[in-house]
Amino acid sequence: MGPNDPFPGDADDTQTAMMQATYDALCKHGYADLTIQRIGDEFPKSKSLIYQHYDGKDELLVEFLAYMLDHFEADIPRDDSTDAHDRLRTVIDHILAPTIDEERYEFTSAMIELRGQAPHDEAFRDQFTENDRVFRARFEEIIRTGIDQGVFREVDPERVAEFVLTTIHGVMLQRVTTDEEVDIRAVRHELKAYLDARLLREEAT
Amino acid sequence: MGPNDPFPGDADDTQTAMMQATYDALCKHGYADLTIQRIGDEFPKSKSLIYQHYDGKDELLVEFLAYMLDHFEADIPRDDSTDAHDRLRTVIDHILAPTIDEERYEFTSAMIELRGQAPHDEAFRDQFTENDRVFRARFEEIIRTGIDQGVFREVDPERVAEFVLTTIHGVMLQRVTTDEEVDIRAVRHELKAYLDARLLREEAT
Repeated sequence: MGPNDPFPGDADDTQTAMMQATYDALCKHGYADLTIQRIGDEFPKSKSLIYQHYDGKDELLVEFLAYMLDHFEADIPRDDSTDAHDRLRTVIDHILAPTIDEERYEFTSAMIELRGQAPHDEAFRDQFTENDRVFRARFEEIIRTGIDQGVFREVDPERVAEFVLTTIHGVMLQRVTTDEEVDIRAVRHELKAYLDARLLREEAT
Repeated sequence: MGPNDPFPGDADDTQTAMMQATYDALCKHGYADLTIQRIGDEFPKSKSLIYQHYDGKDELLVEFLAYMLDHFEADIPRDDSTDAHDRLRTVIDHILAPTIDEERYEFTSAMIELRGQAPHDEAFRDQFTENDRVFRARFEEIIRTGIDQGVFREVDPERVAEFVLTTIHGVMLQRVTTDEEVDIRAVRHELKAYLDARLLREEAT
């Protein structure tokens, strides 16, 4: 977990504990083999609390996605004083890390499994739409700041943000659905080359 | 279907008929609700032929992915006489079409559902690895041709091909897992801007 751990060890409220149990069960079993029972196995309190709150695993998972979004949102630094170009590169370096540890791999796998539910499940689709909107807006905000700082050209921030988000989704998908074939270093290199060519003012290159 | 229809109407061999039935059932029901029985419902011959060939839907679907790959491979024109830049743009325009018809939407949805199986299913992962390898190689080949033609700079074709493939995956994923939020026109515009900046020689820009 990053600096903004979504499951702080000192939190003992029921919702946080349920979300942590969902996270642990999802990383361990993946979506297909996930059951409310298995989430309950990771839950330190009475399982009946989960059954009282949720009708099934999908309802719980949609809430889990919203919960994670709130915390990941906090995980991208909002720091207007730093050079926007550096901020963008730092975020990209983090998200497009060439290798990731097992926990992050399992979590990414589960996210792709959940995305696989979205085409035929409106609740998942709505939540992923919202998640993407938040990430897109965050990239837009960094690009706008860069334009205001005079570091970036007068580009269309929405377009560039959309493209960055698409690249990230592509890497996530390839990372967990193919065997060590994806050259993430190459993708990251090309994304940075795109950003430099597209964003940096002539005098800055 | 494109000019290389994977299910030619005059084909009456059992395998083609089985693959067409799989395609139809997959578009109609998606992966989660797909059963061998439902594939059988689309199959004009004796259902027992399917049961004889395949132990379950996943085995049939992996073969289906390989079959579709063979046909999609033929769908990207191999035409060395055309300007490589035009070829690349034509392929991108086709794959990143801003809107797609219902059949293509359903098929893309099914592909994303199948990708969602890949993290925990080696046979799917192997087949998607192979599919990606073929598409990556095709993009590489176009870029190499462009370098030979003197249209493109001396870039690393593998890196650029990887990046193009990643973008395509990102669009596929967003297209069917979020609600009309993705601005595919923006992504296509930025991908072309990237390719122009990265590939075209100074004198050509």
